Amino acid sequence: MAVDVSSLSERSVEMLMTSDHTSVVSMNLFVALLCACILLGHLLEESRWMNESITALAIGLCTGVIILLTTGGKSSHLLVFSEDLFFIYLLPPIIFNAGFQVKKKQFFRNFMTIMTFGAVGTLISFAIISLGAMHFFHKFNIGSLKIGDYLALGAIFSATDSVCTLQVLNQDETPLKLLIYLFAASTILGVVAGLLSAYVIKKLYFGRHSTDREVALMILMAYLSYILSELFYLSAILTVFFCGIVMSHYTWHNVTESSRVTTKHTFATLSFVAEIFIFLYVGMDALDIEKWRFVSDSPGKSIAVSSILLALVLVGRAAFVFPLSFLTNLTKKSPSDKISLKQQVTIWWAGLMRGSVSMALAYNQFTRSGHTDLRANAIMITSTITVVLFSTVVFGLMTKPLVRILLPSSKHISKVSLGVQDSEANHGPVNIPRPTSLRMLLSSPSHTVHHYWRKFDNAFMRPVFGGRGFVPYVPGSPVEQNDHQWH
Amino acid sequence: MAVDVSSLSERSVEMLMTSDHTSVVSMNLFVALLCACILLGHLLEESRWMNESITALAIGLCTGVIILLTTGGKSSHLLVFSEDLFFIYLLPPIIFNAGFQVKKKQFFRNFMTIMTFGAVGTLISFAIISLGAMHFFHKFNIGSLKIGDYLALGAIFSATDSVCTLQVLNQDETPLKLLIYLFAASTILGVVAGLLSAYVIKKLYFGRHSTDREVALMILMAYLSYILSELFYLSAILTVFFCGIVMSHYTWHNVTESSRVTTKHTFATLSFVAEIFIFLYVGMDALDIEKWRFVSDSPGKSIAVSSILLALVLVGRAAFVFPLSFLTNLTKKSPSDKISLKQQVTIWWAGLMRGSVSMALAYNQFTRSGHTDLRANAIMITSTITVVLFSTVVFGLMTKPLVRILLPSSKHISKVSLGVQDSEANHGPVNIPRPTSLRMLLSSPSHTVHHYWRKFDNAFMRPVFGGRGFVPYVPGSPVEQNDHQWH
Repeated sequence: MAVDVSSLSERSVEMLMTSDHTSVVSMNLFVALLCACILLGHLLEESRWMNESITALAIGLCTGVIILLTTGGKSSHLLVFSEDLFFIYLLPPIIFNAGFQVKKKQFFRNFMTIMTFGAVGTLISFAIISLGAMHFFHKFNIGSLKIGDYLALGAIFSATDSVCTLQVLNQDETPLKLLIYLFAASTILGVVAGLLSAYVIKKLYFGRHSTDREVALMILMAYLSYILSELFYLSAILTVFFCGIVMSHYTWHNVTESSRVTTKHTFATLSFVAEIFIFLYVGMDALDIEKWRFVSDSPGKSIAVSSILLALVLVGRAAFVFPLSFLTNLTKKSPSDKISLKQQVTIWWAGLMRGSVSMALAYNQFTRSGHTDLRANAIMITSTITVVLFSTVVFGLMTKPLVRILLPSSKHISKVSLGVQDSEANHGPVNIPRPTSLRMLLSSPSHTVHHYWRKFDNAFMRPVFGGRGFVPYVPGSPVEQNDHQWH
Repeated sequence: MAVDVSSLSERSVEMLMTSDHTSVVSMNLFVALLCACILLGHLLEESRWMNESITALAIGLCTGVIILLTTGGKSSHLLVFSEDLFFIYLLPPIIFNAGFQVKKKQFFRNFMTIMTFGAVGTLISFAIISLGAMHFFHKFNIGSLKIGDYLALGAIFSATDSVCTLQVLNQDETPLKLLIYLFAASTILGVVAGLLSAYVIKKLYFGRHSTDREVALMILMAYLSYILSELFYLSAILTVFFCGIVMSHYTWHNVTESSRVTTKHTFATLSFVAEIFIFLYVGMDALDIEKWRFVSDSPGKSIAVSSILLALVLVGRAAFVFPLSFLTNLTKKSPSDKISLKQQVTIWWAGLMRGSVSMALAYNQFTRSGHTDLRANAIMITSTITVVLFSTVVFGLMTKPLVRILLPSSKHISKVSLGVQDSEANHGPVNIPRPTSLRMLLSSPSHTVHHYWRKFDNAFMRPVFGGRGFVPYVPGSPVEQNDHQWH
């Protein structure tokens, strides 16, 4: 009997241990570090020199040093970077939340401008960074970089939707046709998923107070849109971004007050934790000696490569912000609608920061199962870390003073300056269509498109899919009293 | 250049696909089915014959049939059951939520009774089921079951904390001493984690409206308590259960109103989705032909085994509910404090249902990487499915009429009958300490222990850790106006 019990014992210990003990230790440390990042980030927030992203990087670096010393220089990270982890768990909440928290009114009112800046701007920036890297890097003899690597560099560091740009590059056919097809199909899928969730919840749940079901359904349908898009080889990022916009425009108004509060904060929290996770990982991985061995062989080259990349990011963004602003200004009649030079500088500056998504994409492009064997790849990773670190810390800290000098008047300061808004900026910069950096354009709205959209929305969409103020009042139904607070 | 671009293409497609296309298809189907379960479960709710659990089982069965036909009889499930999936993702939210939603006042007031019923009752039930199975099953010649398998059966089908019981069985030393050590250590760890979260949030965040940080910290610290407990080879289930109780008693009152709503519903939603996930999986897996091939060889034996298990569950629960009620009644003076026979029958009945955790544990005990090669193991799995199905459907449906007959008066009906309360019963029965089944005892509270606990709580605990009504009012701080609604 003793033997049999111990046989159960072994099996059950194995079962309850879930995997080996080492991985449990790693998970413990990682979760504890996440908590520490949030706490320290909060404590240091008052100094206005730090936020959770920088704290996570710093804590990751310190932990990396400790692990490096403990393991005798063998390894500096707790987890090996996994593409699955990033694309299945970390990226969807970040992007969905970005769509969900978009200021819909301003987004739709400036849809054309945002699309111009987003699509054309990204293309310009992408071309400049790719060509620039190609032009400068071959002089340094840093090893074999393929043309694909240069294009990936352009995609990673060009402003808006890096993942979509990478996706477009995968195709064999005409890029422009595919760009339009991918964009349209991905957007439509996201919009349909969002509308479906709005319709279903409006028809089934309204006034029944089944908050848990509503929240579960919203989360599951948003995630479904993401993986459906992957299934059809579309841009899952675009899909889930637009699904977020539609869900916050229709679905969110069809659910109970509790569901609204819950979804708003759950999505923000998930996104927040995912970003800290990435920063913490990168901080830890930054000390991986394998990578820095290449760098220490030629520190001058590494510094040069990082500086060139940083300069290309600055030039790439300037190359579309100022010309496109000029073109936009040509269409405006009154001077008050035009984008002033100071505003242009702010738009240019506010979008310079590269964040967690850039780093994760660089890891994906330049690592093979956690190792950076090739000299060139190692330098690319270390340079990306340097650029992200520098832009987050230096550009991030200079944004607030800069905005105060350039735009001393009115509410623009609180709108533009990163680090003030709870939902987006505190969580570190992300490489997705940033309404923050384009919010400057809102002082010059083009009312015409928006006007017809509103008419169409009120006449056809809202009666079917619900939405703000279009859900008939039923006793015991979602109350609107706190709506101004969340909106 | 063309070659290079296509090389990027391959790498990026690989990168964006996250893994092979088949697994993306599986994920899509699974998430879509989860949505379908919630929707259908809701639609069928009005009939009062169904809930999400039964719907998930039914949908799982139907999908299993379709997959079986599509694959030509090779497989009937989309995902192979993974211990990691269950213990890392699905179990923690279910158990934590059970602790978080416990009615603290009634739980603490009846702490001794609950512990008596929970600990002693489980031991009695466990012994009866294990010994009964050992006694009856060897007559059927169903294959080689080890003594460990019988003990596991007892643990899986005995009422309360199956996972903890299994954990105790793993140890080599004296069970009783270890039971007490494990219980104490796991509880203390959970309580400390909960108190720490309360203290930290009270000190750092109070009145600052950082909802996302608070929610993230609560989720991460709860999860940290769970994996810390695993790290120390304790009962992670008990730890996270008590962490949930402490968090809802202290931490929850220290956060903003939005955080309260968000955490309450997020935890409930996660638990809800995790349970549906398990039921859906089991429904799909129930059709796995490998298992039923053994059963179809000897259908009589299978029916006999299932019936015996069901009878043992009935007897095992009766064997502690009635004697312990008798003993409890001896300590009460006034007849109104005593547990009447009708109440005892209700307590006995309400705890009979076996749910998702039972099934998951049976899979863990009797499968090796998704296959049930051994004849005895296959019969154990199919019998567990039969018992869970039968008890969920038949016992579940009979509970409400039974309660109406036995306890026609007052509010007991709504308290006891499963299927009415949103937070627990709708999500299917779970094998954890169920306040629901013990709530009958609340009509006879023993005020003495509770009285001193309240005094201690008010004098020492709440001033330090916060809690209801003990958080001083600060302008802009969490408002209490909606508190009755959530509590």
